[in-house]
Amino acid sequence: MTVLGLGAMGRALAEAALAAGHPTIVWNRSAGKADDLVARGAVRAATVTEAVRAAPVVIACVLDYPVLRDLLTPAAGELAGRALVNLTNGTPDDARRTGEWVAGHGGDYLDGGIMAVPQMIGRPGALILYSGSREVFDRHRAVLDVLAESDHLGADAGLAALYDLAMLGGMYGMFAGARHAAALVATVGGDPVRFVEQRLVPWLTALLPVLPSTAEADDPADSSVAMQRVAIANIIRASREQGLSGDLLAHLLAPIAPPADPRITEDVLRLADRTAG
Amino acid sequence: MTVLGLGAMGRALAEAALAAGHPTIVWNRSAGKADDLVARGAVRAATVTEAVRAAPVVIACVLDYPVLRDLLTPAAGELAGRALVNLTNGTPDDARRTGEWVAGHGGDYLDGGIMAVPQMIGRPGALILYSGSREVFDRHRAVLDVLAESDHLGADAGLAALYDLAMLGGMYGMFAGARHAAALVATVGGDPVRFVEQRLVPWLTALLPVLPSTAEADDPADSSVAMQRVAIANIIRASREQGLSGDLLAHLLAPIAPPADPRITEDVLRLADRTAG
Repeated sequence: MTVLGLGAMGRALAEAALAAGHPTIVWNRSAGKADDLVARGAVRAATVTEAVRAAPVVIACVLDYPVLRDLLTPAAGELAGRALVNLTNGTPDDARRTGEWVAGHGGDYLDGGIMAVPQMIGRPGALILYSGSREVFDRHRAVLDVLAESDHLGADAGLAALYDLAMLGGMYGMFAGARHAAALVATVGGDPVRFVEQRLVPWLTALLPVLPSTAEADDPADSSVAMQRVAIANIIRASREQGLSGDLLAHLLAPIAPPADPRITEDVLRLADRTAG
Repeated sequence: MTVLGLGAMGRALAEAALAAGHPTIVWNRSAGKADDLVARGAVRAATVTEAVRAAPVVIACVLDYPVLRDLLTPAAGELAGRALVNLTNGTPDDARRTGEWVAGHGGDYLDGGIMAVPQMIGRPGALILYSGSREVFDRHRAVLDVLAESDHLGADAGLAALYDLAMLGGMYGMFAGARHAAALVATVGGDPVRFVEQRLVPWLTALLPVLPSTAEADDPADSSVAMQRVAIANIIRASREQGLSGDLLAHLLAPIAPPADPRITEDVLRLADRTAG
């Protein structure tokens, strides 16, 4: 296979292919990044066009779609009869447009979202979500399985990006909550890293089983909603008292689906002020 | 012990005390809520003053501090020589002020944050964080241990509220991320509850070990920061494309500590727009 882009993730993908004994062609804008991969048997292509021409499956893993477009445009004539497997982070629409562009040049297209950090690639626990033609996925599955567990979500090329971004959003929500918690504890001299290790991780672990139920809309008849509104108002108020911003938590209460209702955030802040009085 | 307030949590606390064979006095604004506790051996006090007078340890678990103040003010003359254990959700300053007020009436004060849902009270896994005088905590520890595992954080009465709110903030961050993820998946017809169960919970479980490292400030020299900024911009952009608000995620990137730097959020949105162009 060919790997375009040798950032931390692209390098991990190329290493997994090499480790599995696959002929591996690599290209990176700054060619030096390929040196140690070449020492382990990879072939360095001089241009993207050469790299695309060299293998039936071309993995692209670059910073963003503008970079991807700049790379691929000169090589468009080589896409016919090959599969572009695009693991660049983007939106569902980015993926669909790129799939149509590749199809317009006679190529096959799979979009993928990598649910792993580079160190996990090629090892158990790594998952790549794919979308696009099932037939193309099945044809190349053996080589894709070398990189990570492969999961095909559907023919709509945008699905992998959507699920990938949804799961990354879930991750960033957890990370942001943890950073806010650690920052609060640091204001009273607590060690933030030890706090997260010893208190927050066990607490969140205990809460994971109830997470699926939080995916459903709140039942306004549930009396615990009133308690939760008081608790969130208190988090915002305590954050301000400790010199931290409570904005993050104010926004957690805002409804996600449109029409966005700014009254909910205002309501919490008003409650916070009332409770403070 | 006396339990003031028989919401879901107050009832659970009284039940745990009864189950452990402690004389248990209960009071609630609407007295009927005590009926089944009385049937199991609790004593219903007619007024807060009677309830406080009846036991050396008085647990208060009501909606918020204004409610607590209204309850306790008429009973202030009975606090001398007793310990008020306040499990009402509030801020560190709320706790410190209440502790001073109780001390002014000759009473002891412990503040507590309950890290459990009512169903967990009196069972393994339930934790209550306490702060205030260590000596008062040690004197009443045996009875407190009946409710949950007891952990004393320090003499500053505000510490339990601060840790409690920090951990609740961590919980709400995770919940908000999950709701946003589930809402995104629902826009393409995915079942949100099944998505959280089958994909998000395993993903967050795999990420928990790295959570302590996220409590530290980002290293700007870390190349993955650039990747993360692209990913967050893509989540915001994809959310908008799917008709959802991306505000939550924009705020996740804002720094928590002052001076709040609005440029960071603007920067992400500008990046999102640029990437979209």
